[in-house]
Amino acid sequence: MDLASIGATEKGGVCRLALTERDKQARDLFCKWAKLAGCSIRIDAIGNIFARRAGRDDRLPPIATGSHIDSQPTGGKFDGAYGVLAGLEVVRALNDAGIVTAAPLEVVVWTNEEGSRFVPVMMGSGVYAEAFSLKHALEQRDRDGVLVKEALENIGYAGDPAAPRHVMGAYFEAHIEQGPVLEANHKVIGAVTSALGQRWYDVTIQGMEAHAGPTPMNLRQDALLVAADLIKEINAIAKAHAPDGRGTVGWIDVFPNSRNVIPGRVRLTVDLRAADDESLSAMDARLKEFCRMPRGNRVTCVLQEVVYFAPQRFSPDLVQRIRDSARDLDYECMDIVSGAGHDAVYVARVAPTAMIFVPCKDGISHNEIEDAEPEHLAAGASVLLHAMLSRATVPGLA
Amino acid sequence: MDLASIGATEKGGVCRLALTERDKQARDLFCKWAKLAGCSIRIDAIGNIFARRAGRDDRLPPIATGSHIDSQPTGGKFDGAYGVLAGLEVVRALNDAGIVTAAPLEVVVWTNEEGSRFVPVMMGSGVYAEAFSLKHALEQRDRDGVLVKEALENIGYAGDPAAPRHVMGAYFEAHIEQGPVLEANHKVIGAVTSALGQRWYDVTIQGMEAHAGPTPMNLRQDALLVAADLIKEINAIAKAHAPDGRGTVGWIDVFPNSRNVIPGRVRLTVDLRAADDESLSAMDARLKEFCRMPRGNRVTCVLQEVVYFAPQRFSPDLVQRIRDSARDLDYECMDIVSGAGHDAVYVARVAPTAMIFVPCKDGISHNEIEDAEPEHLAAGASVLLHAMLSRATVPGLA
Repeated sequence: MDLASIGATEKGGVCRLALTERDKQARDLFCKWAKLAGCSIRIDAIGNIFARRAGRDDRLPPIATGSHIDSQPTGGKFDGAYGVLAGLEVVRALNDAGIVTAAPLEVVVWTNEEGSRFVPVMMGSGVYAEAFSLKHALEQRDRDGVLVKEALENIGYAGDPAAPRHVMGAYFEAHIEQGPVLEANHKVIGAVTSALGQRWYDVTIQGMEAHAGPTPMNLRQDALLVAADLIKEINAIAKAHAPDGRGTVGWIDVFPNSRNVIPGRVRLTVDLRAADDESLSAMDARLKEFCRMPRGNRVTCVLQEVVYFAPQRFSPDLVQRIRDSARDLDYECMDIVSGAGHDAVYVARVAPTAMIFVPCKDGISHNEIEDAEPEHLAAGASVLLHAMLSRATVPGLA
Repeated sequence: MDLASIGATEKGGVCRLALTERDKQARDLFCKWAKLAGCSIRIDAIGNIFARRAGRDDRLPPIATGSHIDSQPTGGKFDGAYGVLAGLEVVRALNDAGIVTAAPLEVVVWTNEEGSRFVPVMMGSGVYAEAFSLKHALEQRDRDGVLVKEALENIGYAGDPAAPRHVMGAYFEAHIEQGPVLEANHKVIGAVTSALGQRWYDVTIQGMEAHAGPTPMNLRQDALLVAADLIKEINAIAKAHAPDGRGTVGWIDVFPNSRNVIPGRVRLTVDLRAADDESLSAMDARLKEFCRMPRGNRVTCVLQEVVYFAPQRFSPDLVQRIRDSARDLDYECMDIVSGAGHDAVYVARVAPTAMIFVPCKDGISHNEIEDAEPEHLAAGASVLLHAMLSRATVPGLA
């Protein structure tokens, strides 16, 4: 709640865009707390913060956790911030218990996960995992023309680009689910087995606009009618790959969009997601087949691919440690997939990674009314502690 | 083409909004031509112009024809103007032939058919047929706040509100089809048997917006998916009442309309048309049943009725005269319905009425590229001449 006061909105949410003065205040507060908990701070060239709690053997790669503290313009208190503070609580709990782990532990704050001010999203973890280059990230501008590089320097979080590459032994990320599955299943912990792959498309459906009155049904080239078929097809495609397949038409633009004119052109977006590339490819093929299909009414459907994120399986070893920790702590746990992107999805490319989900109220996120139960958040932090400890191999842990 | 030069647009169309300076210029030109053709001019209180060619017995109610010369903002040369000028050509042809009819003939210019500047549409014929009151029409304002009453006075076309009601013996209206049916059937003349009734609706589909990634298909309340079902149902409803049933979703608004958010709310319009009230009522009932249907995903569908125009049958006697004239003149003719509104639809409430359609290129109207073949326009004027003559009972006509 102290962190949430920085950029607090009237409706109970948070507005803390990446690399703004508010982001700086939140970063400063995190660093202060981490130092008070005995951590050393390192900043990399894209502004990621690594707060390290020393282990018995600091040559071992650290067992890390974290998330982000930037927000959407009308974001909630828990998205991202929860994962960072759960990591800090792990450090504090170990301090209180007087436990020193074999490997060092780290709590990471990733730069600009949300992508609201600067794209690409998940910028800090993307640079870390070499999904794109540091140079590319630093050259991006916000709508006012400010460079990422300038913004980092302005808030004092531009680290040394010549510093050696930082290696992790494992990465756990705790996060609110941002979906309705745990709540619907009455579970407290989600052991996230993978992140869905994503394929995004723009579709243009071209017919011919005509007056709704004088044009008989059999002489129409109604683009919206084909769009309706496509919307239903997208739904069927996703359901054919249940339970993890997703298919969404979220945006639609109709021309000329007039009550008594048959739509001559519809543009819409398609968002397909699946847990494995076989499914995603099959969904892609079926969508392309739909668009290619010749139509009696001469309406055409042109597909353009916009984005591809490969599905990302998380480390089976780490996922099992999460399941085991939840079982040991007597929390109701289920396997779950992440439908959304997270820093963990990039980090998984370069280190063993897994995520812990906790429920959020009504599955609502990216919204000022985002909410979560304190006992669920505590449960997630406890599972995180035990999973990290088990991986950091502490001899004599009960 | 002379008339079309008033308000001519660069793309070959016409912009001549009702009761503007350009409308005044077009009205003045018409009146000049009508007077040159020996007609007397009368203006009524809503600005309708009645140009009368005397008959042998001027106590007989006139056999009238006409249409409108106002246009859409990006309208064509022929919509409306054709019917007025075809009427003027009838008068000139009779002058040339030295024929005097028993009943007087009239060529009418109806005020503000398009409704682009002032609503309601078909204002002049609507007041004439008492579909709504003169007072109601005069009190309407354009977007700049100008009253119809003021606009009529400004251009000098406000007639005497105390003048006695004008009675017609019959009314014919020649018009471009504004649809593709004559062209598709290779016909030159359409004998319009009726105008479709119309029911317009606003529909609000309420679901729940949610993130496209984390929300499994079975937990969604996707408003756009229900909209797709509705769009297909509207199509099926219209096709179940072929060939004259029409069903169109022309306008759609999706909230929040974002690529990776499941649509939480969709608003859309429905336009249903049919040739008889039994069909239109059956279509209305099926639409209401669709909206009432409970849905497993708890998405609701609320229907609001916006407009009802009753179907209007035209005078069988006048329609037969049009068919007979086309046959006598050796033009390919077919029965057709009018899907769009026309001044004739209102006039039919108070006088025997029928319409003559001629093809327009690709069925396109309300567009600057609207076009028609000179020989088709001439054919329509010839049929109009013969149909009017037959009704005006001219002894000795060959």
